[in-house]
Amino acid sequence: MRRVYLDYNATAPLLPEALEAAVPYYTSVWGNASSIHRQGREARIAVEDAREHVARLIGAPNPLDLVFTSGGTEAVNLAIHGYAHGNRARGHHLITTRVEHPAVLDTCRALEQDGFELTYLPVDGLGRAHPEALAESIRPHTILFTMTHGNHEVGTLQPLAELVSVAHAQGVPVHVDAVQAVGRVPIDVMASGIDLLSLAGHKFGGPKGIGALYLRDGLGTTMQAVIHGGHQERERRAGTEDVPSIVALGRACALISQRLADEGTRLTRLRDYLEAGVHSRIGAVHPLGKGGERLPNTANLSFAGVKGEALVFSLDLLGIAVSTGASCSSRQGVPSQVLEVMGMSRQVSEGSVRFSMGWGTTDEDIGRVLDVLPSTVERLRLLSPLP
Amino acid sequence: MRRVYLDYNATAPLLPEALEAAVPYYTSVWGNASSIHRQGREARIAVEDAREHVARLIGAPNPLDLVFTSGGTEAVNLAIHGYAHGNRARGHHLITTRVEHPAVLDTCRALEQDGFELTYLPVDGLGRAHPEALAESIRPHTILFTMTHGNHEVGTLQPLAELVSVAHAQGVPVHVDAVQAVGRVPIDVMASGIDLLSLAGHKFGGPKGIGALYLRDGLGTTMQAVIHGGHQERERRAGTEDVPSIVALGRACALISQRLADEGTRLTRLRDYLEAGVHSRIGAVHPLGKGGERLPNTANLSFAGVKGEALVFSLDLLGIAVSTGASCSSRQGVPSQVLEVMGMSRQVSEGSVRFSMGWGTTDEDIGRVLDVLPSTVERLRLLSPLP
Repeated sequence: MRRVYLDYNATAPLLPEALEAAVPYYTSVWGNASSIHRQGREARIAVEDAREHVARLIGAPNPLDLVFTSGGTEAVNLAIHGYAHGNRARGHHLITTRVEHPAVLDTCRALEQDGFELTYLPVDGLGRAHPEALAESIRPHTILFTMTHGNHEVGTLQPLAELVSVAHAQGVPVHVDAVQAVGRVPIDVMASGIDLLSLAGHKFGGPKGIGALYLRDGLGTTMQAVIHGGHQERERRAGTEDVPSIVALGRACALISQRLADEGTRLTRLRDYLEAGVHSRIGAVHPLGKGGERLPNTANLSFAGVKGEALVFSLDLLGIAVSTGASCSSRQGVPSQVLEVMGMSRQVSEGSVRFSMGWGTTDEDIGRVLDVLPSTVERLRLLSPLP
Repeated sequence: MRRVYLDYNATAPLLPEALEAAVPYYTSVWGNASSIHRQGREARIAVEDAREHVARLIGAPNPLDLVFTSGGTEAVNLAIHGYAHGNRARGHHLITTRVEHPAVLDTCRALEQDGFELTYLPVDGLGRAHPEALAESIRPHTILFTMTHGNHEVGTLQPLAELVSVAHAQGVPVHVDAVQAVGRVPIDVMASGIDLLSLAGHKFGGPKGIGALYLRDGLGTTMQAVIHGGHQERERRAGTEDVPSIVALGRACALISQRLADEGTRLTRLRDYLEAGVHSRIGAVHPLGKGGERLPNTANLSFAGVKGEALVFSLDLLGIAVSTGASCSSRQGVPSQVLEVMGMSRQVSEGSVRFSMGWGTTDEDIGRVLDVLPSTVERLRLLSPLP
């Protein structure tokens, strides 16, 4: 039986074309992209070609504004830590929200230990930060506002234009953690005025272990490196370039650029099919993060009287992969901080399950979930000690 | 015509078996290793299996003493920066040598900017640090000695046992940058008493973009993370695990473990064949780093009256890839600091070319180099403005 994978916000399968593009860089053009001989120059050309595809996907005017990193987490670290330490002479205050991914929150905590001050904006019931709250929190020494566009748990898209506009009005640059948004919704760093943007390959069909940070022209020189060493990435990120992964990321970006609009429509339809199907078949289901702008691929549903983790395990036995909250925290078994901050009760939070879709998801996948979910939920509700 | 690749110290081609091992983790078991569903658990098993193979290659008693990183540079950063900042309460003095790779030197420079004090040990004409110099440089507040075993330019192996013994006698732990040594010479962290050790996959047949840091039991808790975020790698390195690259690294380590002795013998023979062949065919050649213990795969030869870079380009046109110094600096065109510190004149340094071999190198490759090198050197000497 074909397994159903609905955990694209944890990681997406690699696009076959991306693997195909990478393989020659494993088997024949294996040079170090910094070497001056032909093997090195061919690798360099491939890296720079990939950089162009990444730039194009997010509307970056110059490919050299992109720094390749080992993934979304490192990109976020470089953005926040690198920018804060590189601009410490200008100020020591940063602003973020209370619904960030651990990559942001832990980096901010590390900054606090280094003497920086952080303001954590509250969010509404859909996980949105409010422009007025941002405006009020800006101080003369605020050097950065960092926020996630496309929450990893509920898919919330922030009111990006308003927030950027408020920050810029007071001269504060904006970093967007777009790890869950890139490749799923249109992002244009120029049109949106985004100053720094983090992305990860493996959320939308590129490989794991590769990501990128976009730095608006001129910002690059103010950054402090997180990883020190060789002169790679114009002194902004040391380490031998992971050529095959970079090539695969570039290929994924090129494909996604073409498919983005159609895929957005298709995923929205699948998600709506799932949500409507669940509501028509199962009672006492609470959709989380629904009502505003959100990622097309994410449905977070809380089933009253059910533990989300039990539902994840039950569906797994039936060949369906879904998730509670963030996978990088899921082994800890702690309730989701994101949902708590959004004002959800512990019961709603504990009953929530995230269904996240992507390029490989089909109507049949959703149909299969709708086939087995009602009886599974019913069984868990009968067993449940919850009221 | 088959190209000859003799730049393994820059990067090695991926072992075909390693690619084969990785592919299923791109095409079918694509889960996030932190996910609790079956796709995630299968990925987790693969990651932990690979960790065992890496541990076995370096004699680490417990696979969990290994932290996967994005490569050698990040491993070195985590080792030095992470250990120094995590142990700042104990002291602020570190010792290294003057012939380190930029990953070490730049990390040390960043520590100096953070208020740490560094001592850079001199080396002899072969690039070796002397145990007496180390003993004299240790202070009450010295917290770490970090050194490279297997110099990237000349292949020098340090007197590891003596240096570790001197450091330990005064209670100073030792980090070994073994990026060029692992997979080429036997390394046993337990037998050698190494406290921290950095390695990179792509120098010996694993993929680029993956490396590991070994931390002696008990040291892990004292480390400060370099990349903050999720709970991966037991809180020591955040970011979604690059499962396919980890699997490929594990497979490469498993293969190399079996082949290490035979490969060492084979590479020594090839290197000796190259060095002897050059000396019998070409006059005024100075072998660098030769005379003590060194990597079996590296020959660094300085050709009087020739610019190394010109020789690299000339050989490249003939289908032979070699290098001057470190590839990550080779685009900068600055003379090698390593050779300068070893006491070489500028002329010797500028005339040097590194031939580095590995698993794919054959007798025919060396034969081809010996066929074309004499006439190439002769032509360059005729053209040269050097005396």
